[in-house]
Amino acid sequence: MYTLVLLRHGESAWNRENRFTGWHDVPLSDTGRAEAVRAGELMRDAGLAFDVAHTSLLRRAIETVNIALDVMDQHWIPVRRHWRLNERHYGALQGLNKKETSERYGPEQVFAWRRSYDVPPPPLDPGDERHPRFDRRYAALPPDLLPASECLKDVVARMLPYWYDAIVPDLRAGRCVLVGAHGNSLRALVKHLDGISDEAIAELNIPTGIPLVYELDEHFRPVSSRYLGDPEAARAAAEAVARQAG
Amino acid sequence: MYTLVLLRHGESAWNRENRFTGWHDVPLSDTGRAEAVRAGELMRDAGLAFDVAHTSLLRRAIETVNIALDVMDQHWIPVRRHWRLNERHYGALQGLNKKETSERYGPEQVFAWRRSYDVPPPPLDPGDERHPRFDRRYAALPPDLLPASECLKDVVARMLPYWYDAIVPDLRAGRCVLVGAHGNSLRALVKHLDGISDEAIAELNIPTGIPLVYELDEHFRPVSSRYLGDPEAARAAAEAVARQAG
Repeated sequence: MYTLVLLRHGESAWNRENRFTGWHDVPLSDTGRAEAVRAGELMRDAGLAFDVAHTSLLRRAIETVNIALDVMDQHWIPVRRHWRLNERHYGALQGLNKKETSERYGPEQVFAWRRSYDVPPPPLDPGDERHPRFDRRYAALPPDLLPASECLKDVVARMLPYWYDAIVPDLRAGRCVLVGAHGNSLRALVKHLDGISDEAIAELNIPTGIPLVYELDEHFRPVSSRYLGDPEAARAAAEAVARQAG
Repeated sequence: MYTLVLLRHGESAWNRENRFTGWHDVPLSDTGRAEAVRAGELMRDAGLAFDVAHTSLLRRAIETVNIALDVMDQHWIPVRRHWRLNERHYGALQGLNKKETSERYGPEQVFAWRRSYDVPPPPLDPGDERHPRFDRRYAALPPDLLPASECLKDVVARMLPYWYDAIVPDLRAGRCVLVGAHGNSLRALVKHLDGISDEAIAELNIPTGIPLVYELDEHFRPVSSRYLGDPEAARAAAEAVARQAG
């Protein structure tokens, strides 16, 4: 039996400003840092003893894991960071205000970009300074690997190799694994683990800052999963995320 | 030509209380966090672009590197953590007030423990709850590897394998390397790099929070080394450390 814990980062500066974030690298807000502390307390109180953590290359996930592990007195464990755990790339929408975007393109179009499984937002122009190829952290990657926009289906495709090649080997070695990531990279992983259909995944919302604990069998399939802490709080937080995405 | 930067963590809670710290895992003070921010600014302004960082397993070094890299917008680089970069183990003195220890054992004895190359402080009893064998982060290590007390000579002996086996391969691969560690693990490394004698090392003091930049040749020997920022500030900080150690 293997233990895997998923943790979605808390509120960032751009969540507060209601802007599309994607791969843009914004810090946590004070609220987000408080959520990370609370997540650390929940995991500590649950007696979780991690052997390794995996995060994206974005500071809101990195900081969340740093803070939570520090609260748990487990700041010293190895942490692996990889772009395949990044949030969905939001293409040309990155940085735009969600309300203004809705007014400009119409709420139905924006809803499709936000919630459909296979409709990516408009891509970034290769010359756009927001394109990941101008960012040193992705500079060593071949250009054909770098997204200029992603739908959830794209995220599943680029995240799964990391699941199979980096996280599963840690689990197989008997390590207790923490994954600190984002709404959509975690939805992609949960879709895979729980076998959720392309249609049903639209309804799945992962609350921020509430650790989701999976027990997996020898084939890395879920035996059980549960949110730590008050179940009612997890349900309310997921609904808040759903409303925000509406 | 290889680039290596050494960074000693800033003030910790126990520095403030004038207690022997060693492997005891205390957080930075507010002053120490400000030193880490300043170190990050100095490295950012020097145009340093790190590919990997190495730290000890102690949170004052881990937090210093986390803060400095965040200031540099390089929070996403790989960080390796290893006990071989830990501070010198201070044995049974860990946790004791330095002034009280001096009154109890005499200033000459304490000076010998603090500054001689090969006189370790009294060891921790194997049953002492402060012994590293009771700490999960060292639980996988064979007991004969775990120190109950260390002199600087011991630190050199246990640090050098990490230099050769982990840091040198990173440098050889062309990576720009940051090492975030402690007064004595860094003195041990500087002793090796600069070929300082067992006698002369007693006089070497590394200031906290001021990055020390080495350029190394193809044999990993120093071509040059310098502290970033105001040279006068580095000198004054080293003297402050010397006075504290007196």
